[in-house]
Amino acid sequence: MNLEEKLLHGDKRACARLITMVENNQQEAFEIIKNHYNKTGNSYVVGITGPPGSGKSTLTDRLTRELLNRGKKVGIIAIDPTSPFTGGAILGDRIRMNDLSLNKNVFIRSMGTRGSLGGLSKATQGAIKILDIYGVDYIFVETVGVGQSEIDIVKAADTVLMVMVPNLGDDIQAIKAGIMEIADIFAINKSDIDGADKTQVEIEMNLDLNEEMDYRPPVLKVSARKKEGISQLVDSILDHKEFLEKTGKLKDRRKRNTEIEILNLVEEGLMNIIFSKMKRKAIFDEIIESVMSRELDPYTAKDQIIKLIK
Amino acid sequence: MNLEEKLLHGDKRACARLITMVENNQQEAFEIIKNHYNKTGNSYVVGITGPPGSGKSTLTDRLTRELLNRGKKVGIIAIDPTSPFTGGAILGDRIRMNDLSLNKNVFIRSMGTRGSLGGLSKATQGAIKILDIYGVDYIFVETVGVGQSEIDIVKAADTVLMVMVPNLGDDIQAIKAGIMEIADIFAINKSDIDGADKTQVEIEMNLDLNEEMDYRPPVLKVSARKKEGISQLVDSILDHKEFLEKTGKLKDRRKRNTEIEILNLVEEGLMNIIFSKMKRKAIFDEIIESVMSRELDPYTAKDQIIKLIK
Repeated sequence: MNLEEKLLHGDKRACARLITMVENNQQEAFEIIKNHYNKTGNSYVVGITGPPGSGKSTLTDRLTRELLNRGKKVGIIAIDPTSPFTGGAILGDRIRMNDLSLNKNVFIRSMGTRGSLGGLSKATQGAIKILDIYGVDYIFVETVGVGQSEIDIVKAADTVLMVMVPNLGDDIQAIKAGIMEIADIFAINKSDIDGADKTQVEIEMNLDLNEEMDYRPPVLKVSARKKEGISQLVDSILDHKEFLEKTGKLKDRRKRNTEIEILNLVEEGLMNIIFSKMKRKAIFDEIIESVMSRELDPYTAKDQIIKLIK
Repeated sequence: MNLEEKLLHGDKRACARLITMVENNQQEAFEIIKNHYNKTGNSYVVGITGPPGSGKSTLTDRLTRELLNRGKKVGIIAIDPTSPFTGGAILGDRIRMNDLSLNKNVFIRSMGTRGSLGGLSKATQGAIKILDIYGVDYIFVETVGVGQSEIDIVKAADTVLMVMVPNLGDDIQAIKAGIMEIADIFAINKSDIDGADKTQVEIEMNLDLNEEMDYRPPVLKVSARKKEGISQLVDSILDHKEFLEKTGKLKDRRKRNTEIEILNLVEEGLMNIIFSKMKRKAIFDEIIESVMSRELDPYTAKDQIIKLIK
């Protein structure tokens, strides 16, 4: 069997290899996705985000175990901050080196935030499609950090779970506010710490301010370490899924995400064309030198480069 | 006097208004930058980053006061996480509502991480140029968070200052590792907390591993709250500046940043062309519908859209 057939037969190693190929931007992997795109759309994607130190990884593991107990097949994509110089993922798979990764119904992959244009979002979306064709029921996309690119990735999920912890200070409050509106569910992890109730009230009060919500996000207290509240959290994900399906909003959300995905692909494609045109004409260095010596400004330089493509 | 003349005469309100125009992507502001681009390059840009809760804002204020005491004029651009729905900056200028903002030699501006394509980096680079023409000696660009877009913004500085705090846990360690290599100077803030020495040793050990450094980043213990170590930190910025200038590396760095800036502008420009072409032909909705119904895959959809421009 070739790689394509192996994937369709649920071969975990084929799945892993194809995701690596997607990460490396190898056309062959995208051709396989194209051939089987009509088999996608069955996996339910849950984005998990929250401030550093909130215990997202452990919580994701607990949710995965709960879904396994319910007979489901799960994929996990953990987005790691990447060294901009070495290009390697920082957390790597090492934090996942537990028995979960050996389970035949779980597929785990860390992906690094590479520097390439549009790279991570394309790779994540590609990996989701591979997992979808491979046949998992749920995909967790977990992001460390709170930057715009991470928010964009987590927003592309069907359900967004925001993990909070008690007492994280002012900066965290601000960040929380920044992504509160994309959350469908809040989980206050480490809820045995003093201050969990206060954090819960704060989140609820924030939610009260937003009158335009069509779905009031539940705020659950959990403890990943103590394995408390996990089953309820899974239920709340399923509740949200049911809501989206019944109201037709799942289709709306996926449509919006498809639009964003395609525009990102267009952007990357156009830049590739520009790069090859500039290479052929060898004019980029000249333009940069003119800008460096202030004979040319960056905005006029931009116009000169764009003329190459029109 | 018109806005342009006022800016050249050091009018703070004209400066503020032009930065707002840059944020709103108003062509008039960019025309003024173009007209006076040959007056730029005199401000020295310091990027300040670090994990949430590290006290970056307070430290930036202290550094600003120290530079004021040394007779310098300072601009501060604070990048705030933005609500993706309301589009407004979260921290706003309110955290800066102190006597600093009233000082005639200080210009402070918060900028939100807007969702628009290439928006924040273009706005930040534009604001830096306005401040440069306005005539500040130093510009601090401060970013909350650790996402890729924030890293990209802080990397565009002449000197990158990484603010750390003792004992921030595993997630933070990972993030630290992710951006360690872009830092030229480390400041361990809140250094009166137990664990500051340990953090210092850890950073030094990490630096020992990197053999390719041409400048060994100093690791300074400071306390913004207690006003300790601030003068030494300013000195370390000036030391790095002198190193870059003497070795010619400042020019290299600015050249790399100019390249990235122009490519970002090209990207934005190309997407604007695509948007207007798609609008005229009204084909985007049709393409999205085909992808939603799985008749078309996103990669082929991308090819169809790109054909519009060629």
